[in-house]
Amino acid sequence: MKILIVYAHQEAQSFNAALLTRSVEVLTACGHEIRVSDLYAMRFNPVATAEDFRERRFPAVLQYDREQKYNYEKSSLSDDISGEIEKLLWCDMLILQFPLWWFSVPAIMKGWIDRVFVNGAVYGSGRRYDTGGLKGRRAMVVTSTAAYPDMCAADGLVGALDVILWPIQNGALAYAGCKVLPPFVSWSVNFVDEATRRRYLDDYAARLTQIETTEPLFFHSLQDFGPDWRLKPDVVARAVGQGKPTTA
Amino acid sequence: MKILIVYAHQEAQSFNAALLTRSVEVLTACGHEIRVSDLYAMRFNPVATAEDFRERRFPAVLQYDREQKYNYEKSSLSDDISGEIEKLLWCDMLILQFPLWWFSVPAIMKGWIDRVFVNGAVYGSGRRYDTGGLKGRRAMVVTSTAAYPDMCAADGLVGALDVILWPIQNGALAYAGCKVLPPFVSWSVNFVDEATRRRYLDDYAARLTQIETTEPLFFHSLQDFGPDWRLKPDVVARAVGQGKPTTA
Repeated sequence: MKILIVYAHQEAQSFNAALLTRSVEVLTACGHEIRVSDLYAMRFNPVATAEDFRERRFPAVLQYDREQKYNYEKSSLSDDISGEIEKLLWCDMLILQFPLWWFSVPAIMKGWIDRVFVNGAVYGSGRRYDTGGLKGRRAMVVTSTAAYPDMCAADGLVGALDVILWPIQNGALAYAGCKVLPPFVSWSVNFVDEATRRRYLDDYAARLTQIETTEPLFFHSLQDFGPDWRLKPDVVARAVGQGKPTTA
Repeated sequence: MKILIVYAHQEAQSFNAALLTRSVEVLTACGHEIRVSDLYAMRFNPVATAEDFRERRFPAVLQYDREQKYNYEKSSLSDDISGEIEKLLWCDMLILQFPLWWFSVPAIMKGWIDRVFVNGAVYGSGRRYDTGGLKGRRAMVVTSTAAYPDMCAADGLVGALDVILWPIQNGALAYAGCKVLPPFVSWSVNFVDEATRRRYLDDYAARLTQIETTEPLFFHSLQDFGPDWRLKPDVVARAVGQGKPTTA
């Protein structure tokens, strides 16, 4: 497969950097083709502004998503955005690797999503979920946290992991059309010993050898919803965002 | 009350700008003292880097959260961060106003949280939720979306609103110690007519007159959790992140 790893950590000696290095080794050894967007190293600009557009359909008032669509069609998005869209559409699988900050992605990665997941390519004109612009691709969240696993259990202190990750896994990746593999989480990285960190690296490597066959997470497909945008009465809610928690 | 509005929209003629203007008018008329952090106007830098610290406890390897704590104690955080922390600790209520992008805050606001919610002031050393650094304060999410309300119903296409907002409302605001008021959402703003937008402005103004007495959202308090970080067996799960959905 062609795999794009979007990576957000500032420190070359961090555990996240070790995970990235290991992942590139393993995936390459498996025969995959890898590209990495190392957002800090690229000094990626995460702030969505009018400067993202070389053309304007509506010059008077900025409507960011409409200008995304117009400029994507005109090939007049700023070069940094166009370069990332090229990588995104090139890949068969997208890995988002980041430390979990405030139960979400760091700002530099949120900005990559805000600016690169453009209207017209990734979604728009009714295309989303099963019909999203990234249809046919796989995706996976790879994250690290200071939290202990029990804190993110179904009844854990900070909330169930699938609730915490809903906006990223459902709201961004599945919405865009990706099949989302279960996340890989390195728990309580601030507090574990070297042996545990090595085990995390090995566990991640093992997960990566199975990415072509791993069963994706369940999210409801468009056909499960009625014209009122609600689950049809005969559909049993099975995703944590739609009324009933998934099994932990 | 002293109210800090953190605001993230690029366009002075946007509906969000109209909401901001209206909120400042209404809150001032109610006798509140208002400060606004207009993140785009400030050209706020959302990217967390080593440049945020004038001192370093661990010069060799950047550990961002530990340097936050060290530099907060030494008053050696970068000036832009210190200025925002001063506003944050000054306020009795924090309003986060933003357009909902990819079911979360825009990157510029995520970076405000990443960099300003510092270890040592907002959380740390076991302080969180009931004991968080912002204890005693209220907070509120004010957002706009292209989505229709039914899409964010408990069984809606993109997921229940309280699931979508969990990382912000529970993971950031409640975690930091705030009582979180129900969010104010302007629905399907891209598609509604002027009369509806005026109604949204009036509805928001009405909500703002009640912020001192509005009942906060329910989140479990620390005492509901055992030493294993899970809800105690005799506690009924009542928040969407902990096993059972709240009522829609």
